Amino acid sequence: MNIAVAQSGGPTAAINSSLCGVFSRAVKAHGIERVYGSLCGIEGIIYDNLICLNDKLKTDEDIERLMLTPSTALGSCRYKLPDRMKDDAPYRAVAKCFEKYDIGMFFYIGGNDSMDTVAKLSAYFKKSGSDVKIIGIPKTIDNDLCETDHTPGFGSAAKYLAATMREIVRDSSVYSAKSVTIVEIMGRNAGWLTASSCIVRLTGETAPHLIYLPEREFKIDRFIHDVKLKLKEHRAVIVAVSEGVEIQADNYDLSDFQSGATDNFGHKYLSGVGKCLEKVVSNEIGCKVRSIELNVLQRCSAHLASKTDLDEAFDIGAAAVDAACAGETGKMMTIQRLSDKPYAVSMGSVPADIIANEVKLFPDKWINADSNDVLPEAVDYFLPLILGEPDIKYENGMPVQMLIK
Amino acid sequence: MNIAVAQSGGPTAAINSSLCGVFSRAVKAHGIERVYGSLCGIEGIIYDNLICLNDKLKTDEDIERLMLTPSTALGSCRYKLPDRMKDDAPYRAVAKCFEKYDIGMFFYIGGNDSMDTVAKLSAYFKKSGSDVKIIGIPKTIDNDLCETDHTPGFGSAAKYLAATMREIVRDSSVYSAKSVTIVEIMGRNAGWLTASSCIVRLTGETAPHLIYLPEREFKIDRFIHDVKLKLKEHRAVIVAVSEGVEIQADNYDLSDFQSGATDNFGHKYLSGVGKCLEKVVSNEIGCKVRSIELNVLQRCSAHLASKTDLDEAFDIGAAAVDAACAGETGKMMTIQRLSDKPYAVSMGSVPADIIANEVKLFPDKWINADSNDVLPEAVDYFLPLILGEPDIKYENGMPVQMLIK
Repeated sequence: MNIAVAQSGGPTAAINSSLCGVFSRAVKAHGIERVYGSLCGIEGIIYDNLICLNDKLKTDEDIERLMLTPSTALGSCRYKLPDRMKDDAPYRAVAKCFEKYDIGMFFYIGGNDSMDTVAKLSAYFKKSGSDVKIIGIPKTIDNDLCETDHTPGFGSAAKYLAATMREIVRDSSVYSAKSVTIVEIMGRNAGWLTASSCIVRLTGETAPHLIYLPEREFKIDRFIHDVKLKLKEHRAVIVAVSEGVEIQADNYDLSDFQSGATDNFGHKYLSGVGKCLEKVVSNEIGCKVRSIELNVLQRCSAHLASKTDLDEAFDIGAAAVDAACAGETGKMMTIQRLSDKPYAVSMGSVPADIIANEVKLFPDKWINADSNDVLPEAVDYFLPLILGEPDIKYENGMPVQMLIK
Repeated sequence: MNIAVAQSGGPTAAINSSLCGVFSRAVKAHGIERVYGSLCGIEGIIYDNLICLNDKLKTDEDIERLMLTPSTALGSCRYKLPDRMKDDAPYRAVAKCFEKYDIGMFFYIGGNDSMDTVAKLSAYFKKSGSDVKIIGIPKTIDNDLCETDHTPGFGSAAKYLAATMREIVRDSSVYSAKSVTIVEIMGRNAGWLTASSCIVRLTGETAPHLIYLPEREFKIDRFIHDVKLKLKEHRAVIVAVSEGVEIQADNYDLSDFQSGATDNFGHKYLSGVGKCLEKVVSNEIGCKVRSIELNVLQRCSAHLASKTDLDEAFDIGAAAVDAACAGETGKMMTIQRLSDKPYAVSMGSVPADIIANEVKLFPDKWINADSNDVLPEAVDYFLPLILGEPDIKYENGMPVQMLIK
């Protein structure tokens, strides 16, 4: 029997580590011969676009290099499987591919959209009496999947954010004039990553001085009030704001930065919350102001990956193979936190259909009453996830990577 | 006798390393008792705002931590000294401060604006018969100072850019749809940093596929033509563009992203070239397009500093003390490159007045005929500057820093 693995959704610094975990456990597992990589997510299965990973990953060094390579080594997609009662053609294409390559297990590394695919495919195969096992492996820098304490990829993004935001704090602190620096952070629906910027305070910095999450309403008037207040206390005010906040403005034309366009999963394209708030501060307060959009850097900065994150991403990939070997299907692997101090976790699994298309918000209990900061309790949750630095090799002054496509 | 040191202009990842070089050599030099740090550049001297660095930097570990702390530890300013024939009040304030603290040498770490200050101050002290020595120490990520092979701070910025751009390449390569990613890079007048992105090709990447520098004219029509052509060859086209290009457009309204405002040195505030080109690609080509502004991250990312750069920044600070002790004044320290392979440099000095307010452009001979790329010869110049990684200590998952203000 052979197995297949694919990656989906937006890149992270840890998603290839999960691929390595699947591969490494599979090559040691009894009864698994070959590990196929499906190019561009589930589309590689549907369109018969597979590569044999055993031909690509030959040494421990290959694995180590791939673990430290950001983004999806096998490519990605944003493909949403149709309801099989309405259109079963893609399902039949998957079944045909699995038969052709003798694939008995399929591992899909992705976010909640990918778990929709896992749930639908496993239901299809169960219904058709097939023994193929389908397991989802969580991945998202947004940390917004239900039923898991956190998601692989998040810790590295949070570590990048913390280190980078501290450098931004240093940068913004050099001039004697008052200033406001607005850092726009990814997180479409949930504010986990933005909230994690509170870790910076462990260094003794007072920044970020304001943290705005999409979980609470965001009023322009209140924002201006908050910034004015912080400028009285601090020379260089740092604001962390989620790209996902929905700005409520009565007197501002915000049409420039919100688009009505939606992707295949119904997401609004978001960009420019930071730039918008920069203009608001400039107009209403008039001090020096700068906005910084961390953009894709926060999801692919493997050079600043969290070792804890990479290790867990690897382990959960390996645990997925164990689960499939034990007969599980239609599941998403999960991480349960056993304790903060000392940090300890265990791996588990839950039915993928309870994850699919659901979003886990940042807990209300960790947001302050003014909706402009997170509470210190959140630090205990975040800190263990960003600890540890992998041993990165450099060549020509740049981190070594491993391309397998 | 005591000495004073100050930092000026925009932050870099290496400017504190030069501060450490001055301090470390001074404490060993015969006849120097105390090293004062002037807060917020020359303004700290004028307004009597000094701290004694001997009280702050007590151990080798302090020095090591400060070397790895980005941005100006002593703060900065953008103060331009007036012509002393028109207004000598600031000069008298400086002389008074030097007398009060028994300061016989002053070291100013900064860019070409700071060398204007060095030239003016040294001329003033010479004229008044004072023996005070004034030495400039170059610093700028723009690499645009004349008479020096390169400037401390540039190598770290280039290393950050190379590593980050490669991660952006990985990020942009995951989807099967055609896409354009535009990376906006700092460099007000000179394209050195943008040009250095060519180093990424040493990894085997074809990116960046287009490189636009302020040294050549930038026409929108030509840009659209270039991008269309590259999209035929590559699925994910990566464009490196300097913030300083002056876009020539006949049919586009570009008023959004260029401001007529100028700072004390007559610089235009620039922002949003990338966003502007993103809109142009979206309108004219219609494929997926994203712009990324590296913003201040490229000048303060000490976590990805070049060891070569940090070491040279330290050495040139130490050499400045030697030069002052040897009786030099009104000079800017320089780096001469003795060879590319093996890389070797020596330190020298030139009169600061030939540096002041001048800009060294990226060489015409290294730009291609189509004005949309740099030639391979440039790689030999850039590569040595980004080599080597300092040993960074982490605490709470973030690089350790040293604050002295």
